[in-house]
Amino acid sequence: MAYVPHPDRRPALICGASSGIGASTAEMLAAAGYPVALAARRVNKLQEIVDRITSAGGEAVAVPLDVTDAASVTECVAKAQAALGDLEIVVNGAGDVHFAKSFEVTPEDFAAQVDIHLLGAFRVYRAVINGMIERGRGDIVFIGSDVAQEHRPWMAAYGAAKIGLDALASTAQLELEGTGVRVGVIRPGQVITGMGMDLDPVVGEKMLSDWVRYGFARNSNFLRPEHIAQAITTIVGMPRGAHMRAVEVEAEGAIPKRSKKATEGGGK
Amino acid sequence: MAYVPHPDRRPALICGASSGIGASTAEMLAAAGYPVALAARRVNKLQEIVDRITSAGGEAVAVPLDVTDAASVTECVAKAQAALGDLEIVVNGAGDVHFAKSFEVTPEDFAAQVDIHLLGAFRVYRAVINGMIERGRGDIVFIGSDVAQEHRPWMAAYGAAKIGLDALASTAQLELEGTGVRVGVIRPGQVITGMGMDLDPVVGEKMLSDWVRYGFARNSNFLRPEHIAQAITTIVGMPRGAHMRAVEVEAEGAIPKRSKKATEGGGK
Amino acid sequence: MAYVPHPDRRPALICGASSGIGASTAEMLAAAGYPVALAARRVNKLQEIVDRITSAGGEAVAVPLDVTDAASVTECVAKAQAALGDLEIVVNGAGDVHFAKSFEVTPEDFAAQVDIHLLGAFRVYRAVINGMIERGRGDIVFIGSDVAQEHRPWMAAYGAAKIGLDALASTAQLELEGTGVRVGVIRPGQVITGMGMDLDPVVGEKMLSDWVRYGFARNSNFLRPEHIAQAITTIVGMPRGAHMRAVEVEAEGAIPKRSKKATEGGGK
Amino acid sequence: MAYVPHPDRRPALICGASSGIGASTAEMLAAAGYPVALAARRVNKLQEIVDRITSAGGEAVAVPLDVTDAASVTECVAKAQAALGDLEIVVNGAGDVHFAKSFEVTPEDFAAQVDIHLLGAFRVYRAVINGMIERGRGDIVFIGSDVAQEHRPWMAAYGAAKIGLDALASTAQLELEGTGVRVGVIRPGQVITGMGMDLDPVVGEKMLSDWVRYGFARNSNFLRPEHIAQAITTIVGMPRGAHMRAVEVEAEGAIPKRSKKATEGGGK
Repeated sequence: MAYVPHPDRRPALICGASSGIGASTAEMLAAAGYPVALAARRVNKLQEIVDRITSAGGEAVAVPLDVTDAASVTECVAKAQAALGDLEIVVNGAGDVHFAKSFEVTPEDFAAQVDIHLLGAFRVYRAVINGMIERGRGDIVFIGSDVAQEHRPWMAAYGAAKIGLDALASTAQLELEGTGVRVGVIRPGQVITGMGMDLDPVVGEKMLSDWVRYGFARNSNFLRPEHIAQAITTIVGMPRGAHMRAVEVEAEGAIPKRSKKATEGGGK
Repeated sequence: MAYVPHPDRRPALICGASSGIGASTAEMLAAAGYPVALAARRVNKLQEIVDRITSAGGEAVAVPLDVTDAASVTECVAKAQAALGDLEIVVNGAGDVHFAKSFEVTPEDFAAQVDIHLLGAFRVYRAVINGMIERGRGDIVFIGSDVAQEHRPWMAAYGAAKIGLDALASTAQLELEGTGVRVGVIRPGQVITGMGMDLDPVVGEKMLSDWVRYGFARNSNFLRPEHIAQAITTIVGMPRGAHMRAVEVEAEGAIPKRSKKATEGGGK
Repeated sequence: MAYVPHPDRRPALICGASSGIGASTAEMLAAAGYPVALAARRVNKLQEIVDRITSAGGEAVAVPLDVTDAASVTECVAKAQAALGDLEIVVNGAGDVHFAKSFEVTPEDFAAQVDIHLLGAFRVYRAVINGMIERGRGDIVFIGSDVAQEHRPWMAAYGAAKIGLDALASTAQLELEGTGVRVGVIRPGQVITGMGMDLDPVVGEKMLSDWVRYGFARNSNFLRPEHIAQAITTIVGMPRGAHMRAVEVEAEGAIPKRSKKATEGGGK
Repeated sequence: MAYVPHPDRRPALICGASSGIGASTAEMLAAAGYPVALAARRVNKLQEIVDRITSAGGEAVAVPLDVTDAASVTECVAKAQAALGDLEIVVNGAGDVHFAKSFEVTPEDFAAQVDIHLLGAFRVYRAVINGMIERGRGDIVFIGSDVAQEHRPWMAAYGAAKIGLDALASTAQLELEGTGVRVGVIRPGQVITGMGMDLDPVVGEKMLSDWVRYGFARNSNFLRPEHIAQAITTIVGMPRGAHMRAVEVEAEGAIPKRSKKATEGGGK
């Protein structure tokens, strides 16, 4: 089959790269030889990571991005392309979560979550997709969530936005068939990031107690950002002709007791 | 089990009642004895239906509603309750569809669809839910779509918004457990309504040709609005203790050939 | 549209009619004027219900049925049709549940669950479907489960079989398009039936404790069989042209506290 | 977190290894240093692949396996463990597909598909799972199908069995939480394998025509077995603490036209 092969140079735009999954993905892609544009609101945070990457021999730039601002999105893409060349890869789905019950959250806060997680990701998608179609190739990876599939109390807005992202990806997969552009989704479970960590402790206590009652938060294990970075790196690295359209990664359920037999093995 | 039974009088607010599913649901609920508040932007259209209902002995009022305007939503609910008493039932999910491919639709048009179909429905939900919780009962029926489950080209925004509504309903079901308030979703297939009918014929032709290629539009059968009205009437009529949380209704696939045997039967 | 209307007489076969959902559905359909054939292994149990129905003026017969035995299935259908005429309706999905963890259940017990809940339902489907296709009409309602969608510890075999039933129904809906035969699924939550009640109390305790940990069994509310019977009656009663292809019914989450306002209402 | 790390030596059992995905996975895992036991009914076919692997410096054995025969399954596992040591990895889900419409397939043929694809995979799971639990680690990868999620005419039995496998995996994930054993699912789209290739051409023509009408078979692209092997290798290689529980891989939709710009890139 005569697919256009991946070019040698594949510049990648990483949205939300100032921390967590985005930062880790930028570092992992850079280490694998991809030129990376790190985008987020906090440019000084980005610059630290850019410096770390370039010190290690990678190619990276920092670009300001506010996904809720259409002009910021198009400027970010323009700057990233000016610095690195046409974008071959976009990792898309940044943003902080706001926890509240559906009957307590204000319509404004609900809308703000949808604006970040669904509309923001769409703005980025829309700013890069036609260039990719023209070039006959490109990889967009949306960062979804396991909350999109398994709805969770206190996360109605986030869950609605993230499953909307899944729907956008699925529809885009149909519409992009034959263009050479691949759209995938990674759905992480809970990752140790700064996300949601500014939560009022009293509110957090109530939320946690609800989660326990509904079967969430059964253990205190979390994914590390690099687990998701690894999955994203796998998705964009798939050879042409195949398309890893969805990947779900969860923290392992618990720390198993070290059995005698198990401890015999070395590391791998 | 000691559930609070349905009261004798159950006033219902029907959003998007000026045509299609909303209008039909208002008429069917009114005929079944429910006082109904018909809400939509086009109040003169509403008034015609209200007159028809009251002539037939039903109780109905028309209330202006623009779900994209938070103030309009709270006023609508206040007026409906002033006219009919506390709302026991809300049918929620009005709005027209905009067809466009995900790489052609502008971010503004994409956002507008989400504003109507997801955020608009949330505004209505939020305006009535706490009253229902206080009264220990209430039925909210979201009008979803089969497009929420089976994504369809040219409908990325609508599909994302409608599956977001499903997610909102699922999360609300968890959070409302024990409050006595029931949240359900009806997911209609294609219904003959005015929806999307202002589409440019050339664009419509392209869309239809895509749909055929992806296995949609296999026949020209459509549901009638009263099919969905019947399902909604069933959902809100479920006795306390049970909760019909999701119902999917599709048009029958095609007109079967009249076999000799089949024509022997009378109507039912 | 020229659909073949429902005939005046619509004989219904109810599998698993000796208790629970099946018994209740048989009684409700009979009360609504449908001739009913009650099928199950325990014919003497069936006869009691048949007597009750006929005393109340309904038309009913009892037919032995073991869904795990292909010959029993075809004989059952033949007897039901001999007694009542061509089957217009089949309610299909009987059988008891076996609780066990996936790493403890024997392959034989796992296979037995699949034999009852998936293969058994297929045998019944297969025994009636071609007659329905010939007549250009018919309603088959599979009794699924909410466990098919939300997987539950100790129910791997049941969950696998019931979601297989969902898949069978979905595929059949595609294949039957244009035949006039409708296939629907009802997915009940937990119903008070005799199902699984022969469970060892110590085992049951462990299972319940697991369920609580995973967010199931959050309250002690159960559906009553007549809730599901009502949903099934609605499905088969839908007018031609529409098709209620899936219905989910759950127990209400808890007994709400009787607020002062709420108690003012009368019953409905 | 103190997870038991992967041991240096991780013997893998590959079911259905005589061709297609299984053969390719065996070769890829062997090349990556995993000792592999290739299992299938056709042992002479296996031996060819084993020879190829060992010539290339890998470690491999051939073991006879008929997943429909409980004794064969336990013997296969015993032999594989005798040859390679305790199984750390099992790739599970072999078997040929039978195409037929749900109203034409015999109950026996329907049951046979379920026996291979669901019960067969369960037998293998059951034969290895308790050893893995004891050792506090292990990876089982079920080979599902995209047909499990998007039901397809002529594949009711296969679709029901494969979604049952998904349900088994999901339930097992809950039940195995804290044991250290990971269960994942890979859901391939259409792969070029020998599967289903013995189909009568006239029947195949009808099937294809149905598929086109329902939006399947929109192009003639297929995955190659090594695409799936790559995904499986990624799943089992995830570091402890993370769990890639589901991966969906599809063929790219079509061969994009080579645009001028695109051809400038070199290979990667």
